[in-house]
Amino acid sequence: MTSDSKNPTGSLAPLAAIEDFCRKVFLAAGTDQETADAATRGMLHGTRYGIDSHGVRLLPHYVKGLTEGRLNPRPHLVLANAFGAVASLDADNGHGALATYTGMEHATRLAGEFGIGAVAIRNSSHFGPAGAYAFEAAQRGFIGFAFCNSDSFVRLHDGAMRFHGTNPIACAVPVKGDNPWLFDMATSAVPYNRVLLYRSLGRQLPEGVASDERGYDTADPDVADMLAPLGGEFGFKGAGLAGIPEILSAALTGMKLSFDIAPMPGPDFSTPRGLGAFVMALNPAAFLDIEIFDAAMKRYVETLRASPPREGFRVMAPGDREWAVAAERKKHGAMLDPATVEALRTLASTYRLTSPV
Amino acid sequence: MTSDSKNPTGSLAPLAAIEDFCRKVFLAAGTDQETADAATRGMLHGTRYGIDSHGVRLLPHYVKGLTEGRLNPRPHLVLANAFGAVASLDADNGHGALATYTGMEHATRLAGEFGIGAVAIRNSSHFGPAGAYAFEAAQRGFIGFAFCNSDSFVRLHDGAMRFHGTNPIACAVPVKGDNPWLFDMATSAVPYNRVLLYRSLGRQLPEGVASDERGYDTADPDVADMLAPLGGEFGFKGAGLAGIPEILSAALTGMKLSFDIAPMPGPDFSTPRGLGAFVMALNPAAFLDIEIFDAAMKRYVETLRASPPREGFRVMAPGDREWAVAAERKKHGAMLDPATVEALRTLASTYRLTSPV
Repeated sequence: MTSDSKNPTGSLAPLAAIEDFCRKVFLAAGTDQETADAATRGMLHGTRYGIDSHGVRLLPHYVKGLTEGRLNPRPHLVLANAFGAVASLDADNGHGALATYTGMEHATRLAGEFGIGAVAIRNSSHFGPAGAYAFEAAQRGFIGFAFCNSDSFVRLHDGAMRFHGTNPIACAVPVKGDNPWLFDMATSAVPYNRVLLYRSLGRQLPEGVASDERGYDTADPDVADMLAPLGGEFGFKGAGLAGIPEILSAALTGMKLSFDIAPMPGPDFSTPRGLGAFVMALNPAAFLDIEIFDAAMKRYVETLRASPPREGFRVMAPGDREWAVAAERKKHGAMLDPATVEALRTLASTYRLTSPV
Repeated sequence: MTSDSKNPTGSLAPLAAIEDFCRKVFLAAGTDQETADAATRGMLHGTRYGIDSHGVRLLPHYVKGLTEGRLNPRPHLVLANAFGAVASLDADNGHGALATYTGMEHATRLAGEFGIGAVAIRNSSHFGPAGAYAFEAAQRGFIGFAFCNSDSFVRLHDGAMRFHGTNPIACAVPVKGDNPWLFDMATSAVPYNRVLLYRSLGRQLPEGVASDERGYDTADPDVADMLAPLGGEFGFKGAGLAGIPEILSAALTGMKLSFDIAPMPGPDFSTPRGLGAFVMALNPAAFLDIEIFDAAMKRYVETLRASPPREGFRVMAPGDREWAVAAERKKHGAMLDPATVEALRTLASTYRLTSPV
């Protein structure tokens, strides 16, 4: 669900101008170059590929965190490596994109040496789009996985309390001569943004995606107090899946479990939130002849794309929607919703920069 | 869905007697001791924990495969290790449980040395219950993952062809002083057994779990030709999740993609099916102080179990249903359906053994 579908009166901005502006704002807000680059890159993944909830609309949120103390604008990241193929990365409460790109870079380095590599990230912050980091690994020829837990929004199966975050799972796999296979999902039935959007539109939610405060299904977005886990009647699957990022990102890092994490907008912007994350990379060439792997991936995605759809529908590989959006936005720019446009103009004025819209 | 719910007239058998019988049947059918032990152990995971579709009812299927040439009763398993923390295991068309237990054992060994270990398994066969192998890792103090693809039953999102297998994802995590957190799911909305069961009971299926041959949802089990991916309206999530076992088990092993795999019952029991699988283990102590990890897991599962349920329901941790079934069956034995009882009696007669029922 893109913000622009909510705001037909938004404004178009070229991706390059957005990118340049974001980087300048971060630097003006006091970050080091690495933070400005990584945070911009993470947000641009969202804005370029149509994951607008994790795109440039987060810029004012990040600036607030960076200037009020929640985020460290000039962090000193420290890798501790007790064993060969795994590491822990202490991100010193820096920006989540800097932490996670750094973690994934090290995971691919380990995978290059050991066939697989995993990095548990401590003292990170808001994750941004999980797919960005998996995508990064695939661009380097590795299978990448990225996981993160987050503040609670999602009930358990038959539960009546916000328990897990929307805990994403992302995986990207290189496909030779093609875009990667790129899968990025929240383990909730829908994103919480969908509830907020339908609330503002006065639209009813689909069945079984949100619950009232007693845990009962509701289609009324005004009554919706928590999200359902993926799977509807089989929500134990979505709830179990949410446990994987939870355990990898919190238990394996010593960071906070979802129900202990302070809310993202919340009143306190001066205290780090104690977020963990987890990334992993696999080197296909360590398992088999890379040509066999490449041929299998090619056959897999080509057969998938050519497989018969339901009449009137289309079958897509994970990531295909993203590449289509990116091609469109490369040509015409990205539509930014009015609230984001206004926020960017305010930031431009604050830091004496030219807004991209 | 257990077979006994279909057959109220089934027979109870003590777990120890079932286990002893299975092992003797395998040996009588010509397997080596390792195969008999592993295949029995895998099936008993199913029968002990209530995953009856993957329990002792598979015994006649396995014996047929072992005696007619699909499975190698005395395989020579070969580990190839090109890189530090990963390996490829050629299972020589042996039983899937022998292949996968062996793979997981090596993965935990690698994780003990490198913090993480992964084994891609080639020339394996029917996987059995995915949770069995993840559970094995957790019993040794590791986080275990097990993946497998299988012959096609599940359409893509908006697809109209059997594309993926029910491609399970299993993960188990040790919880100190308690049963592990044990999660084992098919990436289809329901198991295909559910369709067969409802067909024989004349019952309608839940909405959105199965489709006719054109890919349209149907609640009529007689018309159901394929399963829906997990997620209903958000079936792109289930279809994408199915891709993870597909890629790890087939592309990363050079084995068959789901849509190329011969059907499990099929006419040909003399040709190996070319199945792959993938297992992975992580050593928590390689990432952080094990006491911090243990405390986090304890807090996670205790908070989960104590969290408020919807009125009239109960919240369970992944695995809790399994431990309850196992306690019950330890006391009273497992109820075997009439078809299985008959098959076991036939095998007893063939091999001059005493049937457990």
